Order: sequence, then C-alpha cells, then structure tokens
Amino acid sequence: HTDSTNMRLRLPLLCIILEVILIILFGTLVEYNDDTHAKLWNENRTDSATRNDHENEFYYRYPSFQDVHVMIFVGFGFLMTFLQRYGFSSVGFNFLIAAFSLQWATLMQGFFHGLHHGKIHVGVTSMINADFCTGSVLISFGAVLGKTSPVQLLVMAIFEVTLFAVNEFILLSILGVNDAGGSMTIHTFGAYFGLMVTRVLYRPNLDKSKHRNSSVYHSDLFAMIGTIYLWMFWPSFNSAITNYGDPQHRTAMNTYYSLAACTLATFAFSALVNPEGKLDMVHIQNAALAGGVAVGTAGEMMLTAFGSMIVGFLAGTISVLGYKYLTPVLESKLKIQDTCGIHNLHGMPGVLGAVVGAVTAALASPDVYGHGVFADVETGKWNPQSRGGFQAISLAVTLGMALFGGLITGFILKLPIYGAPPDTHCFEDGLYWEVPGEEEGHQELYEVATPNEVEKLSS
Amino acid sequence: HTDSTNMRLRLPLLCIILEVILIILFGTLVEYNDDTHAKLWNENRTDSATRNDHENEFYYRYPSFQDVHVMIFVGFGFLMTFLQRYGFSSVGFNFLIAAFSLQWATLMQGFFHGLHHGKIHVGVTSMINADFCTGSVLISFGAVLGKTSPVQLLVMAIFEVTLFAVNEFILLSILGVNDAGGSMTIHTFGAYFGLMVTRVLYRPNLDKSKHRNSSVYHSDLFAMIGTIYLWMFWPSFNSAITNYGDPQHRTAMNTYYSLAACTLATFAFSALVNPEGKLDMVHIQNAALAGGVAVGTAGEMMLTAFGSMIVGFLAGTISVLGYKYLTPVLESKLKIQDTCGIHNLHGMPGVLGAVVGAVTAALASPDVYGHGVFADVETGKWNPQSRGGFQAISLAVTLGMALFGGLITGFILKLPIYGAPPDTHCFEDGLYWEVPGEEEGHQELYEVATPNEVEKLSS
Amino acid sequence: HTDSTNMRLRLPLLCIILEVILIILFGTLVEYNDDTHAKLWNENRTDSATRNDHENEFYYRYPSFQDVHVMIFVGFGFLMTFLQRYGFSSVGFNFLIAAFSLQWATLMQGFFHGLHHGKIHVGVTSMINADFCTGSVLISFGAVLGKTSPVQLLVMAIFEVTLFAVNEFILLSILGVNDAGGSMTIHTFGAYFGLMVTRVLYRPNLDKSKHRNSSVYHSDLFAMIGTIYLWMFWPSFNSAITNYGDPQHRTAMNTYYSLAACTLATFAFSALVNPEGKLDMVHIQNAALAGGVAVGTAGEMMLTAFGSMIVGFLAGTISVLGYKYLTPVLESKLKIQDTCGIHNLHGMPGVLGAVVGAVTAALASPDVYGHGVFADVETGKWNPQSRGGFQAISLAVTLGMALFGGLITGFILKLPIYGAPPDTHCFEDGLYWEVPGEEEGHQELYEVATPNEVEKLSS
Repeated sequence: HTDSTNMRLRLPLLCIILEVILIILFGTLVEYNDDTHAKLWNENRTDSATRNDHENEFYYRYPSFQDVHVMIFVGFGFLMTFLQRYGFSSVGFNFLIAAFSLQWATLMQGFFHGLHHGKIHVGVTSMINADFCTGSVLISFGAVLGKTSPVQLLVMAIFEVTLFAVNEFILLSILGVNDAGGSMTIHTFGAYFGLMVTRVLYRPNLDKSKHRNSSVYHSDLFAMIGTIYLWMFWPSFNSAITNYGDPQHRTAMNTYYSLAACTLATFAFSALVNPEGKLDMVHIQNAALAGGVAVGTAGEMMLTAFGSMIVGFLAGTISVLGYKYLTPVLESKLKIQDTCGIHNLHGMPGVLGAVVGAVTAALASPDVYGHGVFADVETGKWNPQSRGGFQAISLAVTLGMALFGGLITGFILKLPIYGAPPDTHCFEDGLYWEVPGEEEGHQELYEVATPNEVEKLSS
Repeated sequence: HTDSTNMRLRLPLLCIILEVILIILFGTLVEYNDDTHAKLWNENRTDSATRNDHENEFYYRYPSFQDVHVMIFVGFGFLMTFLQRYGFSSVGFNFLIAAFSLQWATLMQGFFHGLHHGKIHVGVTSMINADFCTGSVLISFGAVLGKTSPVQLLVMAIFEVTLFAVNEFILLSILGVNDAGGSMTIHTFGAYFGLMVTRVLYRPNLDKSKHRNSSVYHSDLFAMIGTIYLWMFWPSFNSAITNYGDPQHRTAMNTYYSLAACTLATFAFSALVNPEGKLDMVHIQNAALAGGVAVGTAGEMMLTAFGSMIVGFLAGTISVLGYKYLTPVLESKLKIQDTCGIHNLHGMPGVLGAVVGAVTAALASPDVYGHGVFADVETGKWNPQSRGGFQAISLAVTLGMALFGGLITGFILKLPIYGAPPDTHCFEDGLYWEVPGEEEGHQELYEVATPNEVEKLSS
Repeated sequence: HTDSTNMRLRLPLLCIILEVILIILFGTLVEYNDDTHAKLWNENRTDSATRNDHENEFYYRYPSFQDVHVMIFVGFGFLMTFLQRYGFSSVGFNFLIAAFSLQWATLMQGFFHGLHHGKIHVGVTSMINADFCTGSVLISFGAVLGKTSPVQLLVMAIFEVTLFAVNEFILLSILGVNDAGGSMTIHTFGAYFGLMVTRVLYRPNLDKSKHRNSSVYHSDLFAMIGTIYLWMFWPSFNSAITNYGDPQHRTAMNTYYSLAACTLATFAFSALVNPEGKLDMVHIQNAALAGGVAVGTAGEMMLTAFGSMIVGFLAGTISVLGYKYLTPVLESKLKIQDTCGIHNLHGMPGVLGAVVGAVTAALASPDVYGHGVFADVETGKWNPQSRGGFQAISLAVTLGMALFGGLITGFILKLPIYGAPPDTHCFEDGLYWEVPGEEEGHQELYEVATPNEVEKLSS
C-alpha cells in the first residue's frame, strides 16, 4: 500500500495550487474593512457622529474570536486524538484543513454576504465567521476520521465550505432567520454532510482495522483537553456574533447553563447504560458538549436559564443514548461508519437546537422582548409564528443541502486518486507520518517488547 | 467490591434528582439581570443618565470570566491528573462536580447576596462568583482525591457550596471585609473543609493502594498543563470581581509579581530539600502557585510589587517545606491523608494571605489610597486598624466554618451507601470507568508485556 | 556525574540571591503607573479632559497580555516537550527562566524606556513588554535545550535580558523603527544569540546522547499543544502593543492570514522533502509558526492579506527546507548544535520579517496610510525611503548585538561551575529531576519490560 498512499506529489501539489489560487483571489478581491484600513479609519474617525462608541474597539469581538479560534484548533483537534494511533493525524490534519478552510471561507462568505464595490471586506467579524465555517468542516472530518487521506480532506473542505456559504446565505440573508450559534448552519449542516460522505465512502471491510479504532489511556486524556476547551468556550462561540448589548450576555449565559445541565445528564446516562455502572469516556468527551450545540439557535432568545437547562439536559440524554444504541444500528443497518459519533454530538443535538429555536421564536412576545432580538415583532412586519415557521423551513433547507452536498462530495472523494488508506491501515498515523518509536534509538528507552518478542513470549 | 462500588443506580439517580431540583429552582427563582434581559435592557437603555459607560459592555468582566472558567475546568482538572491511574477520574469528576456546583452556587450565592423582589438575578458577575465557589469545592476534592466515589463528591459539593455561601455572606456582607481573590473565602475555606473531611474519612489501611498513589512520567506532564494554566490566569482570578479602575489593574499586577517570585522560591527550596539536589514535580506543580493564593486578599490593596514579591517568595517557601516536612506528619500524627497536599497549596498560603490582607488593611492611609479601595478611610466611619481587625476576625470565622462544616460533612460522607472505593482500590480509575487497554484489541498495538509474561520473564 | 551536576547548593543559592536582588531593586525603583496607583488614578480621574476614553480600561490590552502570557508559558514550554525524556525540564526550566526573566526584564526595560523621577512605572504594557523580552530568552533556550543546567539557563537569562533591553532601546528609541511583533527585537535577536551560545558550548561528543535526542509518540502530541497555542495566539502577540485603532486590527489580521498560508506551505514541503511523502512532526510543530515570525515587523503596516499570505508561504517554505537541509550542515560544518532548530523557526523567518518590514516601510505612501502608522510621512520630517533604511540598519544592529552578546555569554556559560550535564546524559530529565517510574511501585502497573528482560528476550 505504500505507493498507493504516498503523499509525496499529491499533497504538495494540492496544497501549493490551492494556496496560490487563494493568494491570487485575495490579491484581487480582498480589502481591509474600514476599521482595519489605515486611511479609511483615519478619514472616518473625524466623522465621529456616524460611529458608535464601541466601533473599532479592538477588544470588542476580538476576545470572542480568540476563544472560537481555540475551539477550532485545540478543541476539535484534540477531541479527535482519542484514537490510539491517530493523534498526529487528528491534530495535524485538523490543523491543515482548518488553515485552508478559513481562507477559502473568507472568500466564499465574503462573496455571498455582500461585496463592497466588487471587493470583500475583511475584519474581526469575518475572521469569526470563517472559523465558524471551518468548524462545520471539522465536524464532517469527525465522521470520516481515520479513513481518509489529507488530500481527500482538503477536497472535501473545498466543497463543504462552498456549500456552507450558500446555505448560510439562504438562511441568514434570504430567510432572515436567527442562528447565531449555528445549530443549523454549523452543526446540523456539518453533521449530515459528513454522515452522507462517510455513507458513500462505506468500507465493508473496515473491521480489518478494528483493533486500532479505539482509545488507550493517555489518548483519552489528550481528547479530554479538546473536550474541556470546547465546553468552556462554547458560551463565547454562541455569543461571538450576536448583537451588541443584551443578546450577547444572554447567549453566553444560556449556553453556560445548558452545558452545566448537559454534563449532569451525560454522567447520569453514561453510568445508567453500562451493566456495571461504569462511565464511558466516549460519552463524557462528546455528549457533555451537546448542550452547547442545542442552544446554538435559541441561545440569543429569551430562553431563560430554566429553559436552557432543560434543553441541555435533553441534549446530553439523547446524545449518550445515541452513542449507546443508535450508532451501532447506523453502522450495521444504514452502513454509516461514524468514527467520532458526530450524529450524537452534532446531528441530533443540532436538529434539537433548530426545533427549540423555532419554538422559542414562535412564542416570542413584546412583553418579553421589548425592542430585543425580535424587534420586528413590534413593527408588525413579521409575527412570531411566521418567524417560527421560517426557522423550521431553515432546518429543512439545511438538511437538504447537507445531504445532497455530502452525496455529491462523497462520490467525488470515492475516485481512487487521493491515496486513501487501505482497509487494513485505517486509524493509523504511520501511513502519512514519520512516527517515532519505529526508529532504533527509542527501543532503548521504553523497552517495549516488539511483536516478534511478544510472539516468542506467547509460545 | 464490584457490587459495593457499582454506580449504575446511585450516580444516575443522584445526578437526575439534583438536576431536576436545580431546574425547578431556577425556573421559580432565577431571572436575567438588567444587562441580560431583552426588555429590561432596552427600557433602561433610554434612561442613559443612570448608566455608566462600561455598563452592559459584554467585554467588561467576560474575559475575566473565561480565564477563571479555564482555571476551574482545565486548571484544577488537569492539576489532579498527576496520579498514574486516576486521570479519567481527576478530569472527569472535576468536570462533574464543577458543573453541578456552579449551578447550585448560583442559587445559594444569589439567595445570600440579595434577592430582587424574591428573584435571583444572574449575569456575568454571578457566573464568576459561581466559579469561585466551585473552586473551593475542587480544593477540597484535592484532599480526598482517589478515595471517594463520584456520589460522595456530589454530596460533599451540596454541603460545601451551601456553607461557602454562608461564610462568604458573613465576611463580605456582614463584616464588610475585602477578599476579592478569596484567600479566605475560597482557599482557606476550601482547604480546611477538605482537610477535615479527609480526617473523618481516615483510612488506616490506605497503604494497600500505595503503589498507585504516585505519578508516572506522562501523568506529571498532564498535571503541568493544569499548573501552568492556573499560574498564568491567576492574575485574572484575583482581579475578576475587584472594582472598576485602578484596583483591577493593581490586583492583576500584584498577583503576577507574587507568582513570579514564588516560582523562584519553589525551585530553590525544591532542590534544597532533596539530598541529591533534584527537583520534585510535586513542588513545581503545586508550590509555584502558592503566590497566587497568598495575595488573594491584599492583591487589590496598595501592596506594591515589592510587597507582592515578598509575599510570593514566602508562600512558595512554606509550601515546599510543607510538602516535604509537614504533610508526612499530618498523615502519621493527625491522620490527615491529603492526596494533593492542599494544606500546602491552599491552606497555609490562604492563611498567610488572610494575615497579609489584615496587616495591609491596618496600614492603609489616605496618603497612599486617596479615594481608593479604602474610600471609607476618609469618611471617618472606619479606621484602618478596625478594618484590619475585621479582616483578622474573618479569618477566624472562615476557619471555624470550614472545620465545623467539614466535620459534619465528613460524617455524612462516612455512611456506607455511596459506593466508596475499598482500601485496595483507591487511586484507580477502573472502579468507576471503562478503562481502555483492558480490552483485547489494544494488546496488539503497544505490545506491552502482561503481568503473566513479566512473571515468565523474571523466572 | 552525580556530584558534578548536583543542584542542591547551586540552584537554591542562585535563585534566592537573584530573587532577593530583584525584591530590593523593585522596592527602591518600581512604582505603580497612574492607572494602577490608587491615589494617582483617583486624582487624575477628576481631570478627565486629559484622558482618552479607553484609558485605564482594564480590558484594553489585558486580554492581549493574557494571550501572550499563554504563549510564553504554555506555548514555548510545551513546544519543547517533544524530546522523549526531557519533558519535565522543557516545561519546568521554561517556567523557571520565564518567571525570572519577566522580573528582570521589567527592571531593564523600565530603565531604558524612561524613568519617571527616577522610578520605573509598571502597568499592563510593561507586563506585555516583559513577556516579550522573556520570549527571546526562551528562543535561545531552544538552541541549548537538553545540554544545559538550570543554573546555566538563569545566567544566560541575566545577560540576554540585559542585552535585549539595550538592543530594543537602540531600535525603538534611537532609530525609531517599527517592530511591534518583534521580528528583529525578539526573534532575530533571540535566535542568533542562542545560536552563538550553542556554538561556543559545542560538544564534539554529543552523539553519546543521540538516542535521547528525538521524540516518542506522546511527547510529540504534548509538543503539539505548544505549537497550536503559539499558532492561535500569534495574532495577539504581534498586535499586543501596536497603537490603538486600525493598526491593532491590521496586525492581528495580517498575522492570521500569514500563519494560514504558512501552514499549507509547511504541509506541502514536509511531504515533498520526504522520500515516502510522509509528514514530519518536527516541521509541523515548528515551521507552521514561521509565518507569525515573518510578519512581526510589517504586520502593523498596510501589508494587506495578499502580502501577508505571500510572506507566510515563503516563511513556511524556507523553514521546512532549513530543517531538512540546513540544520545538518550547521551542525557538521559550523558546529552549531541547535536542538529545536531555532534557526529555522526564529532565525531565518526573523530576518525575512525584518527585510519585509524594511521594504514595506520604504514603499509607504500617504495615499495608502493617511494619518496611520507612518504619520510622520506627512510631516515631511521623514520620507519612507529613509524609514526603510533605518529598518534595515536595525536588522544589522540586532544581528551584531545578538552574535556579540551570545559570544560573550557563551564563554561565561562555559565555566565548569554550573553543573552542566555530561555528554552521556544530555536530553535527560533524570539528572535534575526526581523522575517517577524509577521507583518500585510503578513496575507493577505498566509492566514494561526492563532492559535486562529485553536483553534476555533478544538472546
């Protein structure tokens, strides 16, 4: 398999071509926005009447950007290091496809979100949005983890980022719905896109790599680094691009309470579904985060701490039950091999979040909101029920886009040109990485018995 | 022991009952504060005369909240992963009891800190305060680490959070003392509460698990993740809820210098107390943090960088000496089995911090403070000496509350209904967690010799 | 070697003497700045006409400080844990010398940056600057990693911090150049200083420790924690002390795009230079960061996203090629043993950054900047070409200072009094640390075959 998976030409060629294209497109299309451009900022500064107090305040939104950035690179990256021999690829490929996706997303989102005289304006908000889009690619990565080459992942990112931008444009700009934390645009889209891709890439003989498709003690601890960072910064994630003022406070707080309740549900059901009452790291690492996903739409609304905790508790519960009872069925019956169980962490909780968002929107009233999120409630232009309806339609659109996009992308990824790993060498870093410990020097240190020696011992 | 420690019913029942109670109480008692509530915020916004510039600025305090949040979940969680076979429990139970405690603390603190028409108002500050209270539970967790079931820990958290809120109310609201970084309310309270609990839970036969009560190479590195995050963000911790303006700057800076000096003292004394001059990871992981504890009260005062460095140096010194000489005595003479040595990291430095705070308060003068922290100095209502006296009284109250509360809680935790680990299986994840590497698949990978094989080899 | 490397007296003596000197100097020379001092702040507050809106806003710059702080302690600390048996020293000595350096740097920089009535004023900005200076010491640490005792490292820090402050003063105050992210002051200086030190400390028989001078699987994952944190927070690093307004936005954004492009170049060339097309963790861990180094000078200028991506792509490319082709030559021909390859991560990209900065400055025009970074462009006092010239002169000054300072410091470190490790025990924690796993208790757990047993097996 060494030749067929050799990345020496494929990966450099693709990376360099993509980056050159990106550089050319950035050179021709991208400009600093008014807060970032030296001349524009100085010109506008004199016209202070047109600027709010917090405009061009670097520390407005930038701390949110950094928290989101940590979730994308440390959170997602380390969450996937749970596999015993796939840590380099988990963190490394996460790094690679995120670095590509955020550039490509800047272009795609800039194109759809409105050009300024033919130019894309970039600033702190575009950086956050690009990270959001990248997040959805990393969710899909979770489904195909261990079964794809880095070239395949980059190709997947090209298509997924593009479709993400289209779907986001339809939801936010055409349908005008709320989805600041991305229950629909990020989680539902990323999950069902990835599930469809892994369905198309179904490997009937994947059990040949079964022994590597599990964790070891320290790999589970590395994964907990990812989990905890995602959990802690999720309030920042959901609130990063909500409006200035009360919505940003509310979103952070709702997410915080939802996650806390979700964590207790996760521990409860993880012990309950185990015959010996033992906790399962897979649940703790993943299901405890479902509460953040499930308030991604309604978080900015007047969900209240009470409502958030109920949603979080439900999300943790369905997520654990999904890992225990649904994932095996999806694999055996529907041929969906979902390495990280993204259906349980992002899929079902994302759909739950979309439904909660639709219901909360439909129940909005001026008594509760005043001039808040649903300012148009009072103008009479929209009524909450139709708002709720558009939220529900958005879920359907997202599911359709994700499944259709995943189907097409899956077939493109199936072409035998990307150096995908053979069934016998899935979940194995050694295929694409120089792995230490294979070299001589190390033997002396860890003194681990080699396969031959173990054989000798066993005989 | 499998039956007696089986968590299948105990843990889910307790988690679900607690979360349901929390949800009901939040539903009946908790409301968004004015910055977070859509209608209230919009109504108040028009009345701008009553609001300061920085009100409802999300990025006021929220970055501090995130830093504190990292300390609670990554800092405390990973600090305790130093044990060779207790990493899952350290991070996992830390996660569970923190997620519970922050919800329960919101209610308890909200109740004591003042209701608004019978309602508890939540906002960014209440989130920080809840994390602070959670910190004190996690300190106590350090004393009983490895010797308690998750059910015991949740029960401990119920009582400790409640008593924390009472003690905090007495100190801050009745006695009116300063303790922004919690030398007394968080560290002294958490430490002596935990030490009393572990005293009551004394296990004469704990040496049956002695071989697991130590670190391995990589577990010490995981613990350093916790140490370094605590160290870096301690300036944010101590300054998170100090007043706007100069006190917040001063607190961060004093903590920064105290910790830097403490680190040099820690390395110095760690090498000095070792016959071969070798550094001990236990000291570096813990004692280097004592400087943050010891300026928890005086940090917001005009302690100066000079004073902070002296305090930090002293704190590091007594902490290392405590680990080396006092901890063994506490265990052999006083029957206090303190797994993490919280007496050295939080107990003694906390008391030192309280004393430094009392002295610094007593020495306050208008020449130095102007209208600063001790604004009442000028009104003549208080004089610094009585201020200092009240600070000292607060230390005594805290010690009393902690020891009494720990005593009661310890006896409650001694009931044989919580599935506590037997003496032979302390410091062992396998009791409460599905631990990988016990399953077949992994053998093939790491090729580590099994006990039987090692026996064969040795013969 | 136990005696010659025994730290029992050397390390405590040096640490205590240094800290006592620091405390005395801080006591006599250091004062809180106006934002931090209770009385000064309150007096100034009334005179509001003289203060800008964002003055004494704690959350102005403090979030940048925390991000930089994470890079210094977690970023640099964990980046160097890649060695299989040097993790304690990497994180631990990083911790020690950083804690010392930031105190010493506060004094040195305060002295050179201007005294206030004979006093050094400290505040959030001085904390950031001290961390910056510390960063350059940690870069040099990378060159001598594994081959020096902690006493040597502290002595190196004393000299390097001092010279850093002198060089920084010449560049920023005398030559008046721009170098907000420190391509010259931090990276070029730290790299060539460290390379010269390691040249002077050349060990002809270092291959006796060759088997430990490499990574193992989990040590590479720990190192990735460092890499990813450095990568994520580099936009904060470069923008931490740039001017309020547009430059801070621009710097963060340029750094973000440069790093993204650099990452793709790194993956591309890492695969390309490997015969089997396999990625090398050394490249990913280091070269992917070169893009942050290379925009350290020009980041605040109107480099544009387009320009930043080109610079980042170039930096990643030369860094990977440096690791592959130049480092072995430096070692064999020039006798420069550069453990972490700082020449590839900080040296060459730092010089590239200085050149890019000089060119970008020389090309500045009022059409592009308005009243921006190059405000003096409009006064006519300077023209961009001379600006560019001064930037180039600064690079030469920095290289001279670094090489000369490293030479002197190297010879001082060569004295046989510091307990340096023998050639046979480089890259080994056991020399200076109590290392677990050597004790009896652990054998039982991990059941790793001992050297004797492996010998038996092999026969």
